[in-house]
Amino acid sequence: MKYKMIAPAVPNIPWQDRPEGIKGAPIWRYSDNPVVDRNPIDGVARIFNSAVIPYEGKFIGVFRGEQTNGVPYVYLGRSDDALHWTFDSEKVPFVDEEGKPFMPVYAYDPRLVKVEDTYYIIWCGDFYGAAIGMAKTKDFKTFTRIENPFIPFNRNAVLFPRRINGNFVMLSRPSDSGHTPFGDIFLSESPDMTYWGRHRHVMSAGHEWWESVKIGGGAAPIETSEGWLLFYHGVATTCNGFVYSIGGAILDIDHPSVVRYRCENFILTPEAEYEERGFVPNVVFPCATLHDSETNRIALYYGAADSVVGVAFCNMDDIIDYIKDHSVVRETDTEIGRR
Amino acid sequence: MKYKMIAPAVPNIPWQDRPEGIKGAPIWRYSDNPVVDRNPIDGVARIFNSAVIPYEGKFIGVFRGEQTNGVPYVYLGRSDDALHWTFDSEKVPFVDEEGKPFMPVYAYDPRLVKVEDTYYIIWCGDFYGAAIGMAKTKDFKTFTRIENPFIPFNRNAVLFPRRINGNFVMLSRPSDSGHTPFGDIFLSESPDMTYWGRHRHVMSAGHEWWESVKIGGGAAPIETSEGWLLFYHGVATTCNGFVYSIGGAILDIDHPSVVRYRCENFILTPEAEYEERGFVPNVVFPCATLHDSETNRIALYYGAADSVVGVAFCNMDDIIDYIKDHSVVRETDTEIGRR
Repeated sequence: MKYKMIAPAVPNIPWQDRPEGIKGAPIWRYSDNPVVDRNPIDGVARIFNSAVIPYEGKFIGVFRGEQTNGVPYVYLGRSDDALHWTFDSEKVPFVDEEGKPFMPVYAYDPRLVKVEDTYYIIWCGDFYGAAIGMAKTKDFKTFTRIENPFIPFNRNAVLFPRRINGNFVMLSRPSDSGHTPFGDIFLSESPDMTYWGRHRHVMSAGHEWWESVKIGGGAAPIETSEGWLLFYHGVATTCNGFVYSIGGAILDIDHPSVVRYRCENFILTPEAEYEERGFVPNVVFPCATLHDSETNRIALYYGAADSVVGVAFCNMDDIIDYIKDHSVVRETDTEIGRR
Repeated sequence: MKYKMIAPAVPNIPWQDRPEGIKGAPIWRYSDNPVVDRNPIDGVARIFNSAVIPYEGKFIGVFRGEQTNGVPYVYLGRSDDALHWTFDSEKVPFVDEEGKPFMPVYAYDPRLVKVEDTYYIIWCGDFYGAAIGMAKTKDFKTFTRIENPFIPFNRNAVLFPRRINGNFVMLSRPSDSGHTPFGDIFLSESPDMTYWGRHRHVMSAGHEWWESVKIGGGAAPIETSEGWLLFYHGVATTCNGFVYSIGGAILDIDHPSVVRYRCENFILTPEAEYEERGFVPNVVFPCATLHDSETNRIALYYGAADSVVGVAFCNMDDIIDYIKDHSVVRETDTEIGRR
């Protein structure tokens, strides 16, 4: 292995070997995609944009379940192999600090990140406007909401898996009240998960056409010997709407608002049928990885067409080399990001 | 005096007695408005939306100076009577924590609030998008920038003049990247002026037509026996653009995200010539008050038509009574504002 992944060994993550003939980025779709298909639970029409994590030798995840009334909430799912999932029939029952029910008005695009001994669920909800909601759990039985980290409007918050320089660190993508025709990735720090500050700009949309409208954090960054490996989404606009692709960047390990490498090409763009057709056609939207530090294998989980869940595989060494080989960074990427 | 103003005595604030025949809210314009007229400094075309404060027996202020190149910065002004102002010819020379020059890309609509022994300047600047910038000074010679409290997009941040329940408290108005056709007032807390959280929604635009587009904090709230007296701005839209009026509300003293009274009528709306014509016609935009707890007199400073500075006078007892007599509060006003 060329680079070091600083993460636990998870030898049972799903994997398929690289097929012949891959062009572009060295990443390939699972042959039995989608791994979560339509109508997965009674009353839920679509599960997509969802995050999974290793748990007690198996896998657990938080899933964006779009109910048949169109309102999204977070559902819990479990799997032995991270490919075949069973879901709770009820929404995740969030409570407040006193244990009283405290459900979001809605909740979508959840991420799930373990930091120290706690699992954090992060979603986009209504805080008198679209904003980031958060909850924590240690046992996946009690889900306690913590303070909303930011005022509206914001989406796509992604927590780093460990403290950096003593603080929790989170990426987010400030936005507006609608379908936001702009958006850069910012970073914020917190000593305690209640108060956030030391905000920094990380990187901007606008240069390469596949990510010219907006960008947003995707999977929780993976710690590597080269920096934090970030899969994110980038959005192009067309006469028939937005197209969401997956990009890759490597952030400085100690100052992650500094982008060290940023791949000018998309890593994955909609081309499979389940990515190009669906409730929102032409979307691949990364929300999590499973990754194994003994093999440097990565399984990337992404929502497809706001309708189903797909998995793609890559080798960390190869993907880092591809990002480096095609890296274009600009001033707003490489500066510390304070103004 | 009917109500108690919890603030220092400032007997030398400007004042004119109430003229006969005032209709609507009990507030009246200074007869020699505007107090700052066009072209106040060489290279500055307009000063408006600016904040003043008592200082060493006289008055000092931070002023939005719109340069002749159109870019706004903050200028310092001094006055013996708070009506006749002289301005520094150079922009306020902000520095970073190490004393190195650290100028905003631009800076507009400054507020100036003393908390404990420090004066805080708060403005809207470019943080890779419109956002709140802050600096502190104790002597009005060294102006040290502190961390930006929030990620973009945000405007109209207003600090409370004391800690509440141990924390600094700030109002702000999340927005988008343009001329923002929406906007509610939120509140955030900080233990240290670096990290902010415990965000709460305070009150929404949208009910009365004069404030149906958006609202934003104006002057720093005045502590009173009835709660925090807040002058804010509310915006209507017309076929020929936005109209900015001044509204009044009273927030709960210990839980200021709870609105106790909110005046359904504007307090002041553009009708004087210097308010109805100018760079942006039809704007009255409050940014500060001078107020004297021995007389309950208030002098309200406001930008007019994005061109000049006006002053209006009112008696605190009368204005509180007017707000109470015309108060309409709704669920999003009176709830604690967490979702």
